Amino acid sequence: MTVPAGQHMATEIAEQPDVLARLAAEGLPQLSAAADAIGARRPRFVLLAARGTSDHAALYAKYLIEIRLGLPAGLVSPSTMTVYGARPDLRDVLFLAISQSGGSPDLLDSLVAARECGALTVAVTNNPASELARAAEFAVDVRAGIERAVAATKSYTAELLALYLLLMPLAPGAPDSRQLAEQAAALPVAARDTLARSAEVAAVADRLRLADRLLTTARGFGYPTAREAALKLMETCYLGAQAFSGADLLHGPMAMVDAGLPVLAVLTPGAGGRAMLAVLERLRQRQADLVVVGGLPGIPDDPPVLPVSTAGLPEELFPVVEILPLQQLSCQLAQLRGLDPDAPRGLAKVTRTW
Amino acid sequence: MTVPAGQHMATEIAEQPDVLARLAAEGLPQLSAAADAIGARRPRFVLLAARGTSDHAALYAKYLIEIRLGLPAGLVSPSTMTVYGARPDLRDVLFLAISQSGGSPDLLDSLVAARECGALTVAVTNNPASELARAAEFAVDVRAGIERAVAATKSYTAELLALYLLLMPLAPGAPDSRQLAEQAAALPVAARDTLARSAEVAAVADRLRLADRLLTTARGFGYPTAREAALKLMETCYLGAQAFSGADLLHGPMAMVDAGLPVLAVLTPGAGGRAMLAVLERLRQRQADLVVVGGLPGIPDDPPVLPVSTAGLPEELFPVVEILPLQQLSCQLAQLRGLDPDAPRGLAKVTRTW
Repeated sequence: MTVPAGQHMATEIAEQPDVLARLAAEGLPQLSAAADAIGARRPRFVLLAARGTSDHAALYAKYLIEIRLGLPAGLVSPSTMTVYGARPDLRDVLFLAISQSGGSPDLLDSLVAARECGALTVAVTNNPASELARAAEFAVDVRAGIERAVAATKSYTAELLALYLLLMPLAPGAPDSRQLAEQAAALPVAARDTLARSAEVAAVADRLRLADRLLTTARGFGYPTAREAALKLMETCYLGAQAFSGADLLHGPMAMVDAGLPVLAVLTPGAGGRAMLAVLERLRQRQADLVVVGGLPGIPDDPPVLPVSTAGLPEELFPVVEILPLQQLSCQLAQLRGLDPDAPRGLAKVTRTW
Repeated sequence: MTVPAGQHMATEIAEQPDVLARLAAEGLPQLSAAADAIGARRPRFVLLAARGTSDHAALYAKYLIEIRLGLPAGLVSPSTMTVYGARPDLRDVLFLAISQSGGSPDLLDSLVAARECGALTVAVTNNPASELARAAEFAVDVRAGIERAVAATKSYTAELLALYLLLMPLAPGAPDSRQLAEQAAALPVAARDTLARSAEVAAVADRLRLADRLLTTARGFGYPTAREAALKLMETCYLGAQAFSGADLLHGPMAMVDAGLPVLAVLTPGAGGRAMLAVLERLRQRQADLVVVGGLPGIPDDPPVLPVSTAGLPEELFPVVEILPLQQLSCQLAQLRGLDPDAPRGLAKVTRTW
């Protein structure tokens, strides 16, 4: 049976409110057990290992760990262990591997090596039967269901929520379980409201239909959203999409911003969004063609907006909803350009790297 | 007095053999004192803070620390401390800040906060009088001399060598001081030989003169080179240059590789270069327009090469020479395109971010 171009991706985007509700309803016992084990081991540092879309979930977790858990964290370069055979001292280290499929050999090898080196290993995957999940001391199933589109969508937001529910109980002054349950309950509602804004997404897709390059930018908790949006647009629309933290953009890349270059800037109403206002001003001076994701008071000149509903959510959960209109944009823009976002050229669903 | 377009950048590129020789000759006492202090404190984890070009030196240091020192390491997102006010537990942590100017407020604030949080702080800068150098417990001067071009070149390779000389004495089984001195002596020679290959650089510049986008890619120790080359090409030529680790490229971005898209792939004769051969094969299938930096036996079909002399150097020092033809390429390509690489639009030499 053939499906229309992008049907899988569109369906999986639309499923996300239900996926998030299911994870909150069914996943908590497993998440709590892993959280308790992490808490008991009192890790001093956290290493995060992932590739592709899951690497952006890892980046999200890095912000959560540094800001809310008060622990230093780093993203692993798997090649240090797989290509160079490094065997670092990982006592007191939490090693968190994140992968939709749990199938990439370099992640598996890195996690096995990390466990041998003394780390507490936790795998967050969408496949509890995967080798990665089985090799880890604790495994978390994000319960997103089978993902058919090559471009990951629902597994990404499920990874984000799983990481939030896994890590936040370990934060000093963290919300208690009742508050966490309330936040988790607000998320499917906010996701549904955000996904309903299809007119705004269609207008931005139309605006970008001839673009060859664009930038995405954000700061803080929004930065993983900028990175993931760029990857989605590369995968599905074959756009030269480049993501920069707002601060890094000022250190060099700003020079290549031509008048008219499309820039998608994430400005949701938290500290990360507010820190972007100065970056937006510089982009305006360079006459970039701005599109704002979210929306903050004080943005001059009314750029087009991809609205994001954040009602009832703490800033730490904004990334789960911020990415939704950008997923929709990637899918619709690919279709506008005559491409099939379900099956990007040159890619397979499970990427095996060593 | 006005200088011809790109004169500062070309001069500073050419100065690098002398800069490297000077750092090795004059910098060792200061580097050894800082290395001894680090060794005495026995850090368990390393955090690296930097922006722009120096962020690529930080990435280089991360590979060195993970592979040779056997310590987990992470790149800091300064916004976690400056925008969100995070105050993590940094006892047993080495916090290494790297900055040409030592002048960016967010790096300074991050380093001050890290010191308050218990980290051993070391600043690697090209300005020992900078606030960053004065705020750190130990400061290393990379002695590159005043850098006039906005696009950093000699300060980058000086940072790389300073980090090598600072960190390698802490590695188990590290070269002794006589061996380190021999390696340091081989470096200016290799740099001079590499910089002499101007015909090959001119040929590649000519090939790329109409390009709008390109990719750079590498693995392991070569990956910082790919990142820095992309930044140079963005800054000076306003190219949409995107850098990917060879493994990450396979997880999504490969889809946007059109036939004819220029790809600069770093394949120097070490483990990182050898791990790129499989990536090169995939790029060839997608009919990318390949240019190889370095050169390895076994590369099919004779792509154009930017030669790199690595005689007498360990793989850990290849990045210091690999970047040289890419700096030359950025400078020459900008000039071919009628741009002034000394003064990219929209940038100042010292970027102040918060």
